[in-house]
Amino acid sequence: MRDQYHDDLDAITTSLVDITRLAGSAINNATSALLDADLQAAESVISGDKAIDSLYEQIEANALDLLARQQPVASDLRVIITSLRMVADIERMGDLALHIAKVARRRYPASAIPVELQPTVLEMGQVAQRICKKCSSVIAGRDLVMAAELERDDDVMDNLHRRLFSTLLDDHWQGGVESAIDVTLCGRYYERFCDHAVSVARRVHFLVTGERAPALDDAAV
Amino acid sequence: MRDQYHDDLDAITTSLVDITRLAGSAINNATSALLDADLQAAESVISGDKAIDSLYEQIEANALDLLARQQPVASDLRVIITSLRMVADIERMGDLALHIAKVARRRYPASAIPVELQPTVLEMGQVAQRICKKCSSVIAGRDLVMAAELERDDDVMDNLHRRLFSTLLDDHWQGGVESAIDVTLCGRYYERFCDHAVSVARRVHFLVTGERAPALDDAAV
Repeated sequence: MRDQYHDDLDAITTSLVDITRLAGSAINNATSALLDADLQAAESVISGDKAIDSLYEQIEANALDLLARQQPVASDLRVIITSLRMVADIERMGDLALHIAKVARRRYPASAIPVELQPTVLEMGQVAQRICKKCSSVIAGRDLVMAAELERDDDVMDNLHRRLFSTLLDDHWQGGVESAIDVTLCGRYYERFCDHAVSVARRVHFLVTGERAPALDDAAV
Repeated sequence: MRDQYHDDLDAITTSLVDITRLAGSAINNATSALLDADLQAAESVISGDKAIDSLYEQIEANALDLLARQQPVASDLRVIITSLRMVADIERMGDLALHIAKVARRRYPASAIPVELQPTVLEMGQVAQRICKKCSSVIAGRDLVMAAELERDDDVMDNLHRRLFSTLLDDHWQGGVESAIDVTLCGRYYERFCDHAVSVARRVHFLVTGERAPALDDAAV
């Protein structure tokens, strides 16, 4: 039965890649919803979160079942425990995309993002998309080079996040308080989305090297 | 050696109660720092986060070690897996208190919270404190009645959070954009702090009943 067991382990990794793809698609649609006031894109993210939640529950159930039935040791144990953690991060990425889509829906038919901030938010969306793609590759191929690249992309995200606040606090800002609240929340959601992807990459690092990556610095702006 | 093993399991629960107490103390000091522009309180939260991180790592290492050495099954396995998840939530509660303390420090010697919002934020701090205390009791005594109470407290938190936004969006709001950003972020940190406590309570529910509590609804404002 060891073969079935290893097939089951591999299936968990495949499902992790699938759920990461769903989170990536959610953040892309959420960005379109936000910038283009695209209600259909917003609704697709909102209704699509159920698929992410359900895949999350399924991966978790499969991993727990393997733990209980096979009592794995050493590296197999590490794979399962790490998978349980990664899937929690990825499910949360889906939630954060959902929050962005809800902001977009709340402001429809206007865009929640004032025109002078649209380029910055577009770039945040693109970085998030790139990070999510790399996250899939890191999971699928245990690619530590890609994992390190992903961390550098996250630095780009942090700079974009700071730029958002500089614009809001500029004397020329005329967008008002409601808009400042929307931008502040969306900025935070994008930043946390990428933090969770970094966390996934670091867990893969742990899986491959057996060494803990340094603690994630969640920069609070 | 089964006795040592069960002592080790109990020690994990005791440490979970300890780390929850540290998170509770962090949120109390963070609230004082924020409302009273108390720099010393802010610094104590910021430096104290290291103790929370280090206890987190220790609990995690102990749980993983038990998993690897004892290959537990059934309810013991469930206790360990649930502990791993709970400690991640509680460590995050510490981070959120840290973020609030950093906002307080950034605005010192002013308070980041305008006077008209101080009563609401004070109440948010008190609810967070209460939720944290109940969280400890839920962990220590597996008290499902207390777990249900904690969820009702979280509804109070959500209402307070909505009240913050109503005030910010009121025509009379004169606090400006910088202040609106601070209030928006701190509101989010308090809300997430309590969401994580609810998550801990639900995990205890799962531990006791073997049934998953319904998915946590992270209300994005």
